[in-house]
Amino acid sequence: MTEPAAPDNDLVTSRRRFLQEGGALMGGAVVAGLAGSEALAAAEGDNLPPNIPEWMKAPGDPMGSQPYGMPSPFEKGVVKNISKKLPQYISASGRTPLQDLDGIITPNGLFYERHHGGVPTIDPEQHRLMLHGLVERPLIFTMDDIRRFPSQSQIHFLECSGNPVYTKPYGKTASDLVGLLSCAEWTGVSLRLVLQEAGLRPEAKWLVAEGADAAALTRSIPIEKCLDDAMLVYSQNGERLRPQQGYPLRLLLPGFEGNMNVKWLRRLKAVAEPAYSREETSKYTDLMPDGSAREFTFYMEAKSIITRPSGGQKLTAHGFHEITGIAWSGHGKIKRVDVSVDGGKDWQEAPLQEPVLTRALTRFRLPWQWDGQPAVIQSRAIDETGYVQPTFAELLAVRGENSFYHNNAIQPWRIDAQGQVTNANA
Amino acid sequence: MTEPAAPDNDLVTSRRRFLQEGGALMGGAVVAGLAGSEALAAAEGDNLPPNIPEWMKAPGDPMGSQPYGMPSPFEKGVVKNISKKLPQYISASGRTPLQDLDGIITPNGLFYERHHGGVPTIDPEQHRLMLHGLVERPLIFTMDDIRRFPSQSQIHFLECSGNPVYTKPYGKTASDLVGLLSCAEWTGVSLRLVLQEAGLRPEAKWLVAEGADAAALTRSIPIEKCLDDAMLVYSQNGERLRPQQGYPLRLLLPGFEGNMNVKWLRRLKAVAEPAYSREETSKYTDLMPDGSAREFTFYMEAKSIITRPSGGQKLTAHGFHEITGIAWSGHGKIKRVDVSVDGGKDWQEAPLQEPVLTRALTRFRLPWQWDGQPAVIQSRAIDETGYVQPTFAELLAVRGENSFYHNNAIQPWRIDAQGQVTNANA
Repeated sequence: MTEPAAPDNDLVTSRRRFLQEGGALMGGAVVAGLAGSEALAAAEGDNLPPNIPEWMKAPGDPMGSQPYGMPSPFEKGVVKNISKKLPQYISASGRTPLQDLDGIITPNGLFYERHHGGVPTIDPEQHRLMLHGLVERPLIFTMDDIRRFPSQSQIHFLECSGNPVYTKPYGKTASDLVGLLSCAEWTGVSLRLVLQEAGLRPEAKWLVAEGADAAALTRSIPIEKCLDDAMLVYSQNGERLRPQQGYPLRLLLPGFEGNMNVKWLRRLKAVAEPAYSREETSKYTDLMPDGSAREFTFYMEAKSIITRPSGGQKLTAHGFHEITGIAWSGHGKIKRVDVSVDGGKDWQEAPLQEPVLTRALTRFRLPWQWDGQPAVIQSRAIDETGYVQPTFAELLAVRGENSFYHNNAIQPWRIDAQGQVTNANA
Repeated sequence: MTEPAAPDNDLVTSRRRFLQEGGALMGGAVVAGLAGSEALAAAEGDNLPPNIPEWMKAPGDPMGSQPYGMPSPFEKGVVKNISKKLPQYISASGRTPLQDLDGIITPNGLFYERHHGGVPTIDPEQHRLMLHGLVERPLIFTMDDIRRFPSQSQIHFLECSGNPVYTKPYGKTASDLVGLLSCAEWTGVSLRLVLQEAGLRPEAKWLVAEGADAAALTRSIPIEKCLDDAMLVYSQNGERLRPQQGYPLRLLLPGFEGNMNVKWLRRLKAVAEPAYSREETSKYTDLMPDGSAREFTFYMEAKSIITRPSGGQKLTAHGFHEITGIAWSGHGKIKRVDVSVDGGKDWQEAPLQEPVLTRALTRFRLPWQWDGQPAVIQSRAIDETGYVQPTFAELLAVRGENSFYHNNAIQPWRIDAQGQVTNANA
């Protein structure tokens, strides 16, 4: 051991002792007091620590083979989940593989995307943001101008309002169902500060935001939000925005439905009335049972989902398993997450990963003993306003059957006797 | 505006009014009360909001062109900073471009790397971790075994102990100087829990950790740290570890020098005495003025650096600039960061980005008015133990001239009358 260049002797000695002791090698998946232990049959394989695996016998990849690093080739299956069925440019969307991720930060390469006219390739030197309308001094900003403002960083989630669509939640995996959801540390400038610079007139009640994509996506934002925690964002997780998330500049409205966080932001017009653009009339409104339209549904309500075990995964052993997932609310911090392992009869509180941040994903974890019997597991989020994530039946009773967006219902997973996990709603 | 498909009319109207008003267009880089405003000469260019830039005239990149997303081609210069001078495999290192990053999270593609035998390509199905030595039950774990333990996530920095090397701090940029530093949200299992599973014997005072790279990098870890906040980590920023950071499994010792956080972890041996391996005798010890060796220098002391403005950057205008940078301490939370803009005579406290996390990067920001005169700017970190980041002269008085590692001295930047920023130590 003191000679790292020749560790074999020591290792061989250790191996011999293990074998002499009659198979004391234990499976590692045994947590004292939580599960039984089992012998690890593979312990006789060639790549175990007493032997030297192939990848230790020659130098590895040299420095500089990846000036911008990429995941291991063994993780090549962990990519955005892109539906083959959705028509390109109209409903184009790529989902984050939530069931493969840990913690609360979504790596930039797997951040969800949703766009209506493809992803523009914008030269930041050429990009401009115009701020006009009901302001004292109309302004045009270069990216350098925006960068000179005082900066701030916040960790917030972003979620598409159709995540999943309301009608019969389809999908096999957590990603299929709510993968239009990600979380990052965003850096940019307070929109309030930029508006102060232009001098907002008292009659300005909305800002109309327009993106520089081929769809010129346009949404009206209530002025209260613009003067609260809204940001003009240029970085995500330290580096500049990815093209799919609005490079070089996007609007960030913490807790508001994804499409309002206008990407490739080129124009903000202060106005007295909302624009009633396509994306707030034809789309992103819901038909209520009385025939009226539920429009301007800004906030994403409290929601949660178990990501492990979840649809498409399999429990390969009885005994201890950690149940873990994510919870979030557009209204603030998650106060509590309850988990049920008996189809919703009993609930127990799952500890939350600290720090719990406002309008950010919040990771919950609960130890669980699986007895090998079929089970239905699910989670429900409670946010700091006291709001409790509803069942789909509760949602249906209020919204009727013609709603489309803002489905924040509890998602149950069924586990069969073989350990296979499937969508209990499907 | 209500017709997003044809926004030109409205935009042209706006433009006309601006022009009629006689050049009311203002540069955006003007913060009320902080800086003067200036006309934006480029306002007449072709890609300004009143006109439609090329990238709005045709659909952008379709969905699925990047199942795993990458940065904009306009950010292709933001990559790891790899010295051409260091001999490959001995001192291979790639630095994070700190001066180009915001916030506290380092994106995985730009996380620093440092390795001694190249980066192994490890099949996670074949990888094993052996835990043996002074334990009741020696164990061998598959990655599936490790994944079945209860998980936890923590945001922590990692830093190489030679960052920068102590002798005459060279380098032009923040990355050249302290780019062997990054920060991520790590997910894995508490090492304490794994040790409980094996049953640590009372005479075990150290764990010897060995990596599965060609260098079989080996370090001895005091048992107190192993039973405190040490983790076996398999994910960084949500996704699995990158190969350069130890895929599929690494040790994480929050606050301890980088090389002790053994990557590609294959073996942990509980022992009574440290191994005195190459990396804790020939390397990673310091020669003191009295001729003795300063060894087992675990903790990274409190440190900070201004990343903007920093070496290689240029201030293009007088007036308002934000001074921002990062601070960190292996001993816990950053309590305060002071900034001086007059060569160290006067200091003012810089607000810290919330939440301030233990053993994590902490972003500080301070508004500053540059009067166009030459200036020397620098920051100093104070951690929750009360420790104050020293000047290099203070470090020299204690450590002498033959030290090599653990240089945490204050880094001053010189700004000349043209706004050019350079290393004031060079």
